[in-house]
Amino acid sequence: MKDIQIGMMGLGTVGSGVLKMIQDNEGKIVNITGCRLHVKTIVVHNTHKRRSVPLWDTYLTDNFDELLHDPGIPIVVEVMGGIHPAKERIAALLKAKKHVVTANKNLIATDGPELTKLAADNGVDLVYEASVAGGIPILRTITNSFPADKILEVRGIVNGTTNYILTKMNDDHLSYQQALKQAQDLGFAEADPTNDVAGFDAAYKMIILSQFSFGTRLTIDDLHVEGIENITSDDIKQADSFGYVIKLIGIARRVKESVFAEVAPVLVPKGTPLATVSNERNAVMVTGQAVGDVLFYGPGAGGLPTANSVLSDIIAVTQNIATGTTGHQFNNYRQQYQPASPDDVRYRYYLSLTMKDVPGEMLHLTKIFADVSASFQTIVQTATADGFARMAIITHQLSQRQLRELQAAVQQSPNNSLKLNAAYKVLEK
Amino acid sequence: MKDIQIGMMGLGTVGSGVLKMIQDNEGKIVNITGCRLHVKTIVVHNTHKRRSVPLWDTYLTDNFDELLHDPGIPIVVEVMGGIHPAKERIAALLKAKKHVVTANKNLIATDGPELTKLAADNGVDLVYEASVAGGIPILRTITNSFPADKILEVRGIVNGTTNYILTKMNDDHLSYQQALKQAQDLGFAEADPTNDVAGFDAAYKMIILSQFSFGTRLTIDDLHVEGIENITSDDIKQADSFGYVIKLIGIARRVKESVFAEVAPVLVPKGTPLATVSNERNAVMVTGQAVGDVLFYGPGAGGLPTANSVLSDIIAVTQNIATGTTGHQFNNYRQQYQPASPDDVRYRYYLSLTMKDVPGEMLHLTKIFADVSASFQTIVQTATADGFARMAIITHQLSQRQLRELQAAVQQSPNNSLKLNAAYKVLEK
Repeated sequence: MKDIQIGMMGLGTVGSGVLKMIQDNEGKIVNITGCRLHVKTIVVHNTHKRRSVPLWDTYLTDNFDELLHDPGIPIVVEVMGGIHPAKERIAALLKAKKHVVTANKNLIATDGPELTKLAADNGVDLVYEASVAGGIPILRTITNSFPADKILEVRGIVNGTTNYILTKMNDDHLSYQQALKQAQDLGFAEADPTNDVAGFDAAYKMIILSQFSFGTRLTIDDLHVEGIENITSDDIKQADSFGYVIKLIGIARRVKESVFAEVAPVLVPKGTPLATVSNERNAVMVTGQAVGDVLFYGPGAGGLPTANSVLSDIIAVTQNIATGTTGHQFNNYRQQYQPASPDDVRYRYYLSLTMKDVPGEMLHLTKIFADVSASFQTIVQTATADGFARMAIITHQLSQRQLRELQAAVQQSPNNSLKLNAAYKVLEK
Repeated sequence: MKDIQIGMMGLGTVGSGVLKMIQDNEGKIVNITGCRLHVKTIVVHNTHKRRSVPLWDTYLTDNFDELLHDPGIPIVVEVMGGIHPAKERIAALLKAKKHVVTANKNLIATDGPELTKLAADNGVDLVYEASVAGGIPILRTITNSFPADKILEVRGIVNGTTNYILTKMNDDHLSYQQALKQAQDLGFAEADPTNDVAGFDAAYKMIILSQFSFGTRLTIDDLHVEGIENITSDDIKQADSFGYVIKLIGIARRVKESVFAEVAPVLVPKGTPLATVSNERNAVMVTGQAVGDVLFYGPGAGGLPTANSVLSDIIAVTQNIATGTTGHQFNNYRQQYQPASPDDVRYRYYLSLTMKDVPGEMLHLTKIFADVSASFQTIVQTATADGFARMAIITHQLSQRQLRELQAAVQQSPNNSLKLNAAYKVLEK
């Protein structure tokens, strides 16, 4: 039996999960791979801190060089997070011909192509299943299970924090601020929650999913990113009465031969699988030309689920070492990227407007719609106390261009008589 | 660039889908694998029949030997179905050192171990992703994505025909016979639907899923198999009013160090992902000790979805050929199987009973429950026209042994005053 020594950088929730899973499941791993895994060295900030998982004969050090220069360690796991010094260390490890497994989504979304090339140049593996949707095995599955299908769309709930907040707003009628506070108290949201609630975390994951699905290399600037901070309890209630739940959805889809990608709040029809994804869970729907809709649902984060994805990577690399087939890219699909034309991207929209409750304003609104050739499917007007009416509208399909024209026209209303508070896509049943 | 010649047996819906996908997606396949796939020879019953897909330079023959003895064909796809002569042909192909991809669930569930051994002895691949849940990539995902996790349970909706019938009974209030007729008219059910509606098709899939999840080799006799033929509109309505939908669920789970496996109607709580799986779609939930619940949802059958799974197998074999790593088992996890003790398998149950509407019968029923230490959670009594009352009960958790004792006691009721019409498991939210 072959012993494979593992190095690790970071021993937080995920790192502890990896260590524990390797300790607990030795029998199954040997049964399947014929190899015994052992975590030899872990680089941490503080070697004296008490750890929740027994270390046995694993050696802790704060000196990265002890890992880098150990010829007995072929595989290193990076679960320290952050761009620096993770990037520099991974680069040094790849140059030292070590295989790297990372769960670092921000790093892969921004510097993935550079590090992937470095891995290929050095004939070693760089894999990162855990970087998207924690415990859901989505990247390896796209690579291995749809290689001959033309993927048309990948969309989903890929941020657990925002899904937790939206679930609480929907189910327990909390305000955004109350739900955020609860998420922070429970450790689902950070003290500064911007990265999650503004949609950036989800956007990084969509960049990686787009690469696997379409072969494109998007950057964060290629995506329209809108967070959940402006969703009101009124929107949630109104969507509910229309038969929808509001979710933060990442969408990346082929539109003709181009790709449209964004992260934004979306109305999802109740009774469809995505609508049942609650709390911190994630789900990704892949639509293939041949296969149709396939949904993957599970824990989007958490120590052990993410550790499971890291372990699937470690074992894939172990098998590559055993069969002498390392150095192949995790996903080598490459296509030129063209952003989609705003004329070609069409959706129904939920619009929330406030309107001065005076004669003529409804005519003003309908004229704006007529001017951009947009039409209503449903419209609900409720008076508010302060002389304004609240309009909730579901439109028929609009192109992005029509929506922008409509937004611009509303903004130019004289005396701010009309205000557009929200414009969210509406998914079909 | 390497050209890989493919042979095929059968050119029905799935075979045509495979041929079409290879024709349509040549560019992506070359991009990813560096190989060009070409279907060289297809063995069919009738070489003169008109085909829905263009054959280009693919050669049709009714002589299996032309495929078997062609040294230019390293991979053969079996999509003819049935046990004989598929089994003998696959055996001959493996002995001739050809890799085999099959979608044949019945064959793999019954003769998988024998054929797997034959493949290993000859150093070739035998893969069968399409044999379970059509377009859902579940087998390769269990193998590749949970190798280090202890899988606790795999359960799901793995038969599209029965799920279609139950959806129509639930949503459109059809009777079982009406829904079956509709499924037959639409081609979702066969003229003799027994294999589907009696649960055997689902049971074969659970045998394969159990092998991948637990390393066990069950036979059809190890499973309790109950179909949907006896589900009434009353049961559907009653379950609905309790907050559940009735689904035909395959369950395979660890109970202590043994495995419990069955296929039977089950009450699934509304609002959970499995409850939203409608019509002919399938879904499989894998519960891992580390990862928790992960759900895979998609088309359970159909030409193109199933063809996509066949293609993922062909490409996996192609990559193994390119890297010189053929001959490894699709899943080599092996564990001794122990059937679970009926004392250890505990569920809540939905019971439907008819009871003579006379004084003392309710006492009789409650005494039976007390005798086996079972208790009610919910009980609803409705009078029927013919002097009988209908009782719908949700119990607290019962062991299988308690349920059997309860069933036996009801059966021994004097004058058939009490009759148990259904006993279905109730899943927790």
